[in-house]
Amino acid sequence: MAKTKKKSASAKRPKLSSKSSPRPKNRKHTRKTPARAALPKAALQYIPWTSIPLEDLNPLLQRQFVVGQDIMLARVLLKKGCIVPEHSHHNEQLTYILEGALKFWIDGREIVVHAGETLCIPSHMPHKAEALEDTVDLDVFSPPRQDWISKNDQYLRGTK
Amino acid sequence: MAKTKKKSASAKRPKLSSKSSPRPKNRKHTRKTPARAALPKAALQYIPWTSIPLEDLNPLLQRQFVVGQDIMLARVLLKKGCIVPEHSHHNEQLTYILEGALKFWIDGREIVVHAGETLCIPSHMPHKAEALEDTVDLDVFSPPRQDWISKNDQYLRGTK
Repeated sequence: MAKTKKKSASAKRPKLSSKSSPRPKNRKHTRKTPARAALPKAALQYIPWTSIPLEDLNPLLQRQFVVGQDIMLARVLLKKGCIVPEHSHHNEQLTYILEGALKFWIDGREIVVHAGETLCIPSHMPHKAEALEDTVDLDVFSPPRQDWISKNDQYLRGTK
Repeated sequence: MAKTKKKSASAKRPKLSSKSSPRPKNRKHTRKTPARAALPKAALQYIPWTSIPLEDLNPLLQRQFVVGQDIMLARVLLKKGCIVPEHSHHNEQLTYILEGALKFWIDGREIVVHAGETLCIPSHMPHKAEALEDTVDLDVFSPPRQDWISKNDQYLRGTK
């Protein structure tokens, strides 16, 4: 069995694979937001979650994410009582609760999504959530949430 | 706090929410594949993983998945020694290993992705994998893998 290779560059710049996809020369012309501009198009990315700083959004909410071309995968850590105010977005969302439970107000219903359950939220469907326990939530979005990448997500940054 | 409501319909037809999105009258005209045709466009879906049968692809490989409009989230269970032969697809892939470890041959490299690590694979990039341990792997695809939905994925259905 061949020896496993791990590029040390992955730890320093975990979202890039400079070997496989060098930065395009015309990068400044393709820039959309500062955060997205750091990603070369269609690069292979090997990213341990431990290499991504946890962002503190409010005292009850932390987040980290990996961004591809059309996919974003986020780990969202919510303390019991954390409220995600009602909001909507054009991005399709698929939520998978790994630990804990989130109560959603969505589509005229109340749904408690427990560990081991998923909720697929169509684009533009308003939703609110509350953590009924300390919760580890995986959120998949397509396309990636530009408001999260550029930190224009004030609805999450208030205290409860 | 309002009583939590869980629609019993979710257990019977977990991929549908008939209340929020009735089947379109012209469904037969929008059908692309039998599996996709069962999904009304942009429906809210509340799906426990336990409601989705685990598909046995080969003696070392099981799979279940949730399908949205542009996102597919799959739980893939690989026994130690399971080989996923080299293949490629137009779908962007984001792999998150929850338990175990997968060794990938990809982009001229060998990368072992352990629990707590992710690999974002651009579209059309050939890759092969081997489970170094019993592994629980989350795979996100955009768009959804039609070959998985329609079971035209013979590369996974051979024995090792």
